[in-house]
Amino acid sequence: IIRLFMNKSTGNLIFTLTPARSIEDIVSSHTGGKIFIITDSNCLDLCVRPLLAETPSLEKARVIVTAPGDENKNLTSLTQIWSELQSGGATRNSLVINIGGGVVTDMGGFAAATFKRGVEMVNVPTTLLSAVDAAVGGKTGINFNGFKNELGSFYPANEVVISTCWFDTLPHEELLSGYAEMLKHGLLEGDEEINMLLDYDVAEANAEKLLPLLQKSVEVKRRVVEEDPYEHGIRKALNLGHTAGHAFESLALNSGRPVPHGYAVAWGLVVDLILSHMQLKFDSMLIHRLASFVKAHYGAPAISCDDYPEIIRLMSHDKKNVTPDRIVFTLLSEPGKVEINRVATESEIKSALDIMRDLLGC
Amino acid sequence: IIRLFMNKSTGNLIFTLTPARSIEDIVSSHTGGKIFIITDSNCLDLCVRPLLAETPSLEKARVIVTAPGDENKNLTSLTQIWSELQSGGATRNSLVINIGGGVVTDMGGFAAATFKRGVEMVNVPTTLLSAVDAAVGGKTGINFNGFKNELGSFYPANEVVISTCWFDTLPHEELLSGYAEMLKHGLLEGDEEINMLLDYDVAEANAEKLLPLLQKSVEVKRRVVEEDPYEHGIRKALNLGHTAGHAFESLALNSGRPVPHGYAVAWGLVVDLILSHMQLKFDSMLIHRLASFVKAHYGAPAISCDDYPEIIRLMSHDKKNVTPDRIVFTLLSEPGKVEINRVATESEIKSALDIMRDLLGC
Repeated sequence: IIRLFMNKSTGNLIFTLTPARSIEDIVSSHTGGKIFIITDSNCLDLCVRPLLAETPSLEKARVIVTAPGDENKNLTSLTQIWSELQSGGATRNSLVINIGGGVVTDMGGFAAATFKRGVEMVNVPTTLLSAVDAAVGGKTGINFNGFKNELGSFYPANEVVISTCWFDTLPHEELLSGYAEMLKHGLLEGDEEINMLLDYDVAEANAEKLLPLLQKSVEVKRRVVEEDPYEHGIRKALNLGHTAGHAFESLALNSGRPVPHGYAVAWGLVVDLILSHMQLKFDSMLIHRLASFVKAHYGAPAISCDDYPEIIRLMSHDKKNVTPDRIVFTLLSEPGKVEINRVATESEIKSALDIMRDLLGC
Repeated sequence: IIRLFMNKSTGNLIFTLTPARSIEDIVSSHTGGKIFIITDSNCLDLCVRPLLAETPSLEKARVIVTAPGDENKNLTSLTQIWSELQSGGATRNSLVINIGGGVVTDMGGFAAATFKRGVEMVNVPTTLLSAVDAAVGGKTGINFNGFKNELGSFYPANEVVISTCWFDTLPHEELLSGYAEMLKHGLLEGDEEINMLLDYDVAEANAEKLLPLLQKSVEVKRRVVEEDPYEHGIRKALNLGHTAGHAFESLALNSGRPVPHGYAVAWGLVVDLILSHMQLKFDSMLIHRLASFVKAHYGAPAISCDDYPEIIRLMSHDKKNVTPDRIVFTLLSEPGKVEINRVATESEIKSALDIMRDLLGC
């Protein structure tokens, strides 16, 4: 068990292969009030029931089960959680434990942030993607009227228990989806980190080998978030790969062939590095290495040049793009050297998409 | 115009007889994005339209009008506000201006706190009660399933523009309701302050005379909130008069004869000072002075000894009462000397209610 130091923006991070023991410690030291577990129906059998069996302090916990999937990360599910907290007698001294992927930690976190103006909360991410991304850093929220994460708040968990022990219950594409965010963190950190990640055999992922890599990755996010918890500046570094990535994700969703978030991010990283090369001379050899890795594991997005106008329109509507007439990217001059708020022209974006299609073969 | 210094927990407080000028300053220095005004249908004609006429920068502001009254401080109205912010194209750089009483600042504040994880917000309280209480200190929220302020967050306004200029549009009982919170602040502050308030002729309130008293009063709240923004300790001082007050308020509501919040607080202050005398030797002369003032302006609650069990049940369910089997009060040993979390027994509470009924004549 490794414990990273407590900070208001990211909480106390615990990396462990045996999460039950860490959760037992947390719950038994919570003397205040009732315990509530928020999870979804997928996670209930795969993760929550085994955890309950191993964790005596959770015996009296009330389990709130929501419908799974991003399409249920909405006001209806949130209202259900609020109602169950209320009917279960939650007070300001209660403890909420979110156990699940990003949908659960985002929505359970928003419920905990707003019930009686905030109760204590622990996140237990059960997917690689949520461990490396959603569970850490204080962003909570739900979708609203078709817009992603439109409502929410900054409300960091008091503790985040991160374990790789559940990842073999995940479909392989879920694991890859999380790994794309790790690639992003590697690029933000430096040469050594991104090379270590590109050398790792993600196809044969095993819990013990992955844990230290995951820890390094989460620490990158933690440092960025601590510097800028409310995303006024440098936290936008974490948007690397996401301006293009969100556009690919929305395009795929709108055409009825949705792709996992991390796949879209992996493709977005290739686009952003090509733009980084155009504007900041980012090393083209590393772009080729990353593109080969992405092509081998994530394939390519189903796009042609006919999709470019729609991709550009979607980019200009990205929430983080505060000036709708200019499209801004997070770019790198080299691994570890970030420049946020870089404007790219439509013609630069089109060229970058051309080169990406060439590299990935789409 | 008097400007109190900026603080994260309470925002920048501006006391002025000419609010339009202060709002003009704020809006014209907000270069970021669109302006949204949140108000209710009562306040629209009485306060917002005149303000718009005097404030050129608000010309393009979009006005969101909710249904008035505490019964509309609910998820339906909040959802309407969220939808109108969304359809109006609010971004993270938008500015929300809440203009109204406590319902508007609480609910508009919660909407601003949660839309895109928080946008900038200005409170413009138009009632004495909201100026002295709801608009300052960061508490936002709505009622839910019949429980008051069950959902919400701590989200202080960036600026609060406080003016007495609208108070003559209010029914006199509204003004008295706010004045009860000022009495509370006076008791929390010291002998001089409570005596000044008991000497002031609230029946002939005038905007210019009231403003400096109001400012002193808000400063008491500001200092308490800055010391303990999340109500872990000393902020409970502000609960003086409220354990009994909330019980009177709920009892009246449940019996179909609702009373204004401040009236219930005024009666609650009498109860709490009697308990303060029993437990901490609070000066009985001052209790008599306060009781005379309360009796003259607020009358007495419509209760008999048959209501005691229900009053005690309601007290034990108060949100701030975290241990439901013991009823805790904020008490004073003398004006300005607070003791929070004082437990009173049922028999002490019954005696205090007897004495209050005797003093107020009910």
